[in-house]
Amino acid sequence: MGGRAAGGRRKRRRRGKGASAPPYVKRRIPFFPFADEEALVKLEDQADWLIQEVGLEFRDDEEALRIWREAGADVKGTRVKAPRGMIRELCSTAPPEFTQLARNSERSVRIGGTNQVFAPIYGAPFVRDLENGRRYGTIDNLIELVKLTYMLPSLHHGGLVICEPCDVPVSKRHLDMVYAHMRWSDKPHLGAITEMSRAEDSVAMARILHGEDVMAENCVIMANVNTNSPLLVDKVVTESIRVYSGANQGIIVVPFILGGAMGPVTTAACIAQALAEAMMCCAFTQLVRPGAPFILGNFLSSMSLKSGAPTFGMPEPVMSNFIIGQLARRLGVPLRCGGALTASKVADAQAAYESADSMLSTVLGGANFVLHAAGWMEGGLCTGYEKLILDADRLGGYQVLLSGMPTDDNAFARDAYEEVEPSGHFLGCAHTLRNYENAYYDAVMSDSENVESWEERGAKDAQTRAFERWRQMLQDYEAPPIDEAVDEALNDFIARRKRELPDAWY
Amino acid sequence: MGGRAAGGRRKRRRRGKGASAPPYVKRRIPFFPFADEEALVKLEDQADWLIQEVGLEFRDDEEALRIWREAGADVKGTRVKAPRGMIRELCSTAPPEFTQLARNSERSVRIGGTNQVFAPIYGAPFVRDLENGRRYGTIDNLIELVKLTYMLPSLHHGGLVICEPCDVPVSKRHLDMVYAHMRWSDKPHLGAITEMSRAEDSVAMARILHGEDVMAENCVIMANVNTNSPLLVDKVVTESIRVYSGANQGIIVVPFILGGAMGPVTTAACIAQALAEAMMCCAFTQLVRPGAPFILGNFLSSMSLKSGAPTFGMPEPVMSNFIIGQLARRLGVPLRCGGALTASKVADAQAAYESADSMLSTVLGGANFVLHAAGWMEGGLCTGYEKLILDADRLGGYQVLLSGMPTDDNAFARDAYEEVEPSGHFLGCAHTLRNYENAYYDAVMSDSENVESWEERGAKDAQTRAFERWRQMLQDYEAPPIDEAVDEALNDFIARRKRELPDAWY
Repeated sequence: MGGRAAGGRRKRRRRGKGASAPPYVKRRIPFFPFADEEALVKLEDQADWLIQEVGLEFRDDEEALRIWREAGADVKGTRVKAPRGMIRELCSTAPPEFTQLARNSERSVRIGGTNQVFAPIYGAPFVRDLENGRRYGTIDNLIELVKLTYMLPSLHHGGLVICEPCDVPVSKRHLDMVYAHMRWSDKPHLGAITEMSRAEDSVAMARILHGEDVMAENCVIMANVNTNSPLLVDKVVTESIRVYSGANQGIIVVPFILGGAMGPVTTAACIAQALAEAMMCCAFTQLVRPGAPFILGNFLSSMSLKSGAPTFGMPEPVMSNFIIGQLARRLGVPLRCGGALTASKVADAQAAYESADSMLSTVLGGANFVLHAAGWMEGGLCTGYEKLILDADRLGGYQVLLSGMPTDDNAFARDAYEEVEPSGHFLGCAHTLRNYENAYYDAVMSDSENVESWEERGAKDAQTRAFERWRQMLQDYEAPPIDEAVDEALNDFIARRKRELPDAWY
Repeated sequence: MGGRAAGGRRKRRRRGKGASAPPYVKRRIPFFPFADEEALVKLEDQADWLIQEVGLEFRDDEEALRIWREAGADVKGTRVKAPRGMIRELCSTAPPEFTQLARNSERSVRIGGTNQVFAPIYGAPFVRDLENGRRYGTIDNLIELVKLTYMLPSLHHGGLVICEPCDVPVSKRHLDMVYAHMRWSDKPHLGAITEMSRAEDSVAMARILHGEDVMAENCVIMANVNTNSPLLVDKVVTESIRVYSGANQGIIVVPFILGGAMGPVTTAACIAQALAEAMMCCAFTQLVRPGAPFILGNFLSSMSLKSGAPTFGMPEPVMSNFIIGQLARRLGVPLRCGGALTASKVADAQAAYESADSMLSTVLGGANFVLHAAGWMEGGLCTGYEKLILDADRLGGYQVLLSGMPTDDNAFARDAYEEVEPSGHFLGCAHTLRNYENAYYDAVMSDSENVESWEERGAKDAQTRAFERWRQMLQDYEAPPIDEAVDEALNDFIARRKRELPDAWY
């Protein structure tokens, strides 16, 4: 499924049935200068103004306020303001690029710069597939989704909560989720954030998997956490930062802003507010540990004018993907934004139109880390099995697009014109035979045959073909190898923590 | 359906149930510099090399060869070559921008520069809808599709053959098609090209509709014609040019290149070949009549590596949309490329993914005239009624995207932050109330409600909703007014020509 991008450039090696493909995308095309210099400066000025004049609330975490006071910020009660320049100065120690090691070193990902990494949907309580319909996710669903993600070559990273395992107590869920990624895949993944102890458990499990020494020197786990827009940072964020950044591990902080609700109803204001919130959190990570890897997150949604429901794949968030990309590069930190987003309930044309516009702008905009790149439905409430497969097939195409157009002598094919006269055809010529195999991206989920062959094969739409594919993939799945002692240590850790933790459903 | 882009900027006026919307898109965002200067120069060098060293075949039209000889080209038999620079020199008299008048002057379109015009699918012999399935198109289908196009605000231009009216003899079809656009819509449209006399009939009908004087001074009709790639221009092209360019009307010449068949299997070579073919035809129009409006066409398709079938919405044609845009702007002529293209047989997720990637790159790439912007299915063999509706809804969003992000004081909403404290919400604040109505594009075909309301309303997928919508639209249709004398003159002309022409089915 990786198509041309997967071919030739990199030594192929199969592990189990895991994907053999480049571990991430190395972009070779320029960035799109969607907003001009004047607009970008205005956006940055507004972010600085918000930080200096309005300030952000930092709540429920005295330690966070202490850190801000000590750094010289203007702290009154829980309101933190900082003079123009101070936050940018603090952000400057965050690395513009860093590597997250995977347990299989061939799958380690480079985050930042011109590198782009795709991960599946995160956080949906529901799952849907064509056979069983929509229902709450379970740990069995999560394990299946981890296995599919492992096998899909254009997903470079596992994320974490591909669906919520709602049948496991909330207090213990993080242990099973982190283990699922560690055991059934060998791609990099995220850790938990919902409580400080859960973050600490995730870091502890990563330490077991990767070893104390490796972890001291490298980012081996990251976490993704949302601010409470507008301009509120609660302890879920600051404690996660203290745990992950404190251990020199990566953290993504994401303002999720539904325009008109968690931010003003205009796109420029929402982008600037998101920048202000993310910059403050970036600065906070650098106060906790200078040089700790940070990813600037962004998630803007527009609104249905009929009902106020969030809408996805619409022109306002699409343009914000380009613009936040420009702003993140000016700030010099890696960016997470966008995804294959949709409000559709099923993997129909609406889902695909919205997801494609959202995701193509995400990749062209230069997002370095893309959560929700596959499987997202229903505004993030539901993980679609078929949608995961269909989205991932398009990701392979984006990978080719980002690699640009070859312009070497072979690409210009002058020998073909010596062989083929005007009005002739190139089907059998030497240049075609020499290049045919890797000429075009092979989208395995697209049916491009004529209507007669399509009907003969049952006139199956894309959703039906995707259903058949993921079922087959799960039958073909083989687990990647793991060191038995490490696996035992992980299971011991989980068993101990499960004994210590009471069952809780919140 | 025009959303924000349709609002406020332009005086609204309803004619029948025709769309009230801007007549075309005025782009306010920059172009995407996908290929670098070195690559662009290489592409231009290759096009010049093809013209100078390989040459193009001009067949079945002695007059065309005479014109080339007289211009000083190197003509041997039917092979025409031209020294480096000559063709570019000839192209320089083609206007970079021009206006095509519509019979309703509010719908006239400006083509070239930063203007972008969308038209529906062209040339499909089959139609498909959810109720009646797939069958040959008829004149009744064409009239329905003309009516729908008239009502859809994001289609600015009618094209011509929205489907082939296969129940009308080929020899007379052009008369009924041109009349359908003239009578049941008031948007600009194309004329016929399949034979010189049919082109002449189209121009004659335009002369009746617009008047001799108006036509002498203005472009009121255009035609779209394909070269026979590789490097073959037959009389369908040269005769069309002689008729349309000769009357100072517009012509679009489109190399249709399926990579590996009608061009080499590499993207760079196909882009350069298309540029060479289109430049030669542009030069030919300027030899026929200097200053005649010309649109440089481009249609590249990739190929399924399994079967050799053409594929659409894939990364190679997607990147070519950006690059041919750069080349057309360097040449200084308007561009037609892309469209909402797909190989899917139905309006499913495949159709939408492929169409969205194809069309978003088309609009971002700066195409000035987009045929196939809505309704295309099955590699162009079939016009989808539901697909037309769904695609057109997305076009409204692209229109907003192309208008860019406002950055005035209102957009930055500082008053909203004075009213709403951090951790508050913006739902009822003055800034939101002031801006709500035009804040976001309203995609009427997207269902963004929660799963419960969607199920209550019948759990309809996008295709089903689109079916209901076009049926309702046809019920609501009201024809735009037409001068009775003009209508009579058109009908007299058609009746006379139908008497003169024998029925023929080729």
